[in-house]
Amino acid sequence: MANPTLLILAGDGIGPEVMAQVTRVIDWFGAKRDLAFDVENDLVGGAAYDAHGTPLHDDTMARALEVDAVLLGAVGGPKYDDLDFSVKPERGLLRLRKEMDLFSNLRPAQCFDALADFSSLKKDVVAGLDIMIVRELTSGVYFGEPRGIFEEGNERVGINTQRYTESEIDRVARSAFELAKRRGNKVCSMEKANVMESGILWREVVQRVHDADYPEVELSHMYADNGAMQLVRAPKQFDVILTDNLFGDILSDCAAMLTGSLGMLPSASLGAPNAEGRPKALYEPVHGSAPDIAGQGKANPIACMLSFAMALRYSFDQGDEATRLEAAVEKVLADGARTADLMGPDDGAPISTTEMGDAILAAL
Amino acid sequence: MANPTLLILAGDGIGPEVMAQVTRVIDWFGAKRDLAFDVENDLVGGAAYDAHGTPLHDDTMARALEVDAVLLGAVGGPKYDDLDFSVKPERGLLRLRKEMDLFSNLRPAQCFDALADFSSLKKDVVAGLDIMIVRELTSGVYFGEPRGIFEEGNERVGINTQRYTESEIDRVARSAFELAKRRGNKVCSMEKANVMESGILWREVVQRVHDADYPEVELSHMYADNGAMQLVRAPKQFDVILTDNLFGDILSDCAAMLTGSLGMLPSASLGAPNAEGRPKALYEPVHGSAPDIAGQGKANPIACMLSFAMALRYSFDQGDEATRLEAAVEKVLADGARTADLMGPDDGAPISTTEMGDAILAAL
Ligand SMILES: CC(C)[C@H](C(=O)O)[C@@H](O)C(=O)O
Ligand SMILES: CC(C)[C@H](C(=O)O)[C@@H](O)C(=O)O
Repeated sequence: MANPTLLILAGDGIGPEVMAQVTRVIDWFGAKRDLAFDVENDLVGGAAYDAHGTPLHDDTMARALEVDAVLLGAVGGPKYDDLDFSVKPERGLLRLRKEMDLFSNLRPAQCFDALADFSSLKKDVVAGLDIMIVRELTSGVYFGEPRGIFEEGNERVGINTQRYTESEIDRVARSAFELAKRRGNKVCSMEKANVMESGILWREVVQRVHDADYPEVELSHMYADNGAMQLVRAPKQFDVILTDNLFGDILSDCAAMLTGSLGMLPSASLGAPNAEGRPKALYEPVHGSAPDIAGQGKANPIACMLSFAMALRYSFDQGDEATRLEAAVEKVLADGARTADLMGPDDGAPISTTEMGDAILAAL
Repeated sequence: MANPTLLILAGDGIGPEVMAQVTRVIDWFGAKRDLAFDVENDLVGGAAYDAHGTPLHDDTMARALEVDAVLLGAVGGPKYDDLDFSVKPERGLLRLRKEMDLFSNLRPAQCFDALADFSSLKKDVVAGLDIMIVRELTSGVYFGEPRGIFEEGNERVGINTQRYTESEIDRVARSAFELAKRRGNKVCSMEKANVMESGILWREVVQRVHDADYPEVELSHMYADNGAMQLVRAPKQFDVILTDNLFGDILSDCAAMLTGSLGMLPSASLGAPNAEGRPKALYEPVHGSAPDIAGQGKANPIACMLSFAMALRYSFDQGDEATRLEAAVEKVLADGARTADLMGPDDGAPISTTEMGDAILAAL
């Protein structure tokens, strides 16, 4: 049988550095676990813009639709701040999400035992935290039309459109309920149904999917502002949080930061399963391109490693191998390996990106 | 000279309870500080719906436009959850904001020394925290058209429109810069200019107002998702945060919860100054109607008290009297007075809403 195919888009900033370590791990799985991938590398974001004048070349887009999974580093950086909106690095990532139809974005917010002290929250508030945020990723205000900056009378007006169809809500709700069944069996759906009609429809459809097909899962609804509050106040009340594209962007970053482990958090963006039951999929760390530390060997490669672990689990049905990689990460942390982002000012000297890669390979 | 006029709209849930204590304080200022107000009481939210079938009667709206300031308790509750969108309690509040043209919503997130331990964040992260969030309140996705739930093909679609004109951004930016000048002289503006064109216009106009009229204020821009993260990670980096209606809703609740003192936080919603230099204004606590504890005498009246203090300062030019009331609140806290929301499970017996009112009156 042919090897499964992986397209690596390392992107900008710290993307290439962290991806270099993941590549070593991928090679290890090929050599030691009889799990070889056919890996291709290509450009996205600012890197693609520099080479081709577009943040995602059509050929890259086409390959992304063909491979079994895409692994992405990060996009963006100050160098590209003044680019026209249509060619900003972010447009490359958004195009991938949209054309691959990756409607379900899984963002675990997990507090690693070894790092619980590092959160800005009190240890007892976050120790053992394990939330899964399911964010709708291909619709809402990110893609709704009309959008743009228009003349109106003698001034300009900036317009974006929040827009959700019943079927868009239905399918992402299902993915949240499915996940909940394999976790804590609870879903909390967040919107602003008290202010936005799109939120009313959201709430109604989520409730309908629940009542029809997932009555055994515990479902609650919360306004997104209260959701942000509750995340800060008592995050352990949540299991799966289901929300839309824009609320998900903000709430998942808030949740990620609770754990104190931003450099540790992976994500999976999944589409509908194909004939073999395998979803189109893109995996990327939650952290951004971190231009302030790029190229200095300071970045933490773990979020990107764990994104590859999610790929093993969700795209390649290799749950045991995913667990193996996750266990190696837990071990190096328990042994005290710390990149700069995991240290306070008085905690001594951090290890480098490559040294963290070394440690994880050794633990494997 | 005629007394200044105050319209009190106690609203739903704990609104009437906390407002009863504020009324005692208002009376005290009349009796002891020669600062009498002509106070009227009326209905808003569910209470207005029960009486008139609308969450804000036209006569109440008309009076709100005439008085010198409006003091509001809270709106909403499960009893009204199934009401049609157009008559939900929230519509009453939103109509007040819109027709009074209260475009600048000031939400201080302040950590009270006596309560720093009560935050879910580590004490050193929040002690001394003093942020002012300036939230645009009369535009954006809260009011943009088209909006609603429409048929499309054989399904429905929920639509809301994010919409900002240059002049709407300009005026709220000015209010943020003016405030910053009287505080830490720093403004951080938050949007999603990497994804939304309305955010691009927002950033551009804020920068233009800054460069033209407030070059001495330190201005930075941040994506709203990163803003949520930074609020959790290191909130003391901020002085004034300027943002739009929807981001402001979420970020201000997140910031409020950092302080651990949700029952303590007031807000002011201000319009343009009239001929005498006095803005149209509505003052309300940040907390909601808290239906779970309504009618039990458990609610903390301090947020509503401090909202009245903001009224003294911003509507009646009585900064010294505002400080007097704020000092009384600080004193009772320092003396250990605690309503239930300010206590952990093992902290003993809390005092009631009325007892907190007693304590503040005694301190005055
Ligand atoms: C880079 C940006 C376009 C993106 C988003 O807004 O979705 C990022 O913040 C994320 O959360 O993945
Ligand atoms: C009650 C509701 C309409 C309101 C809002 O969304 O603005 C509230 O959450 C607030 O922040 O004042």
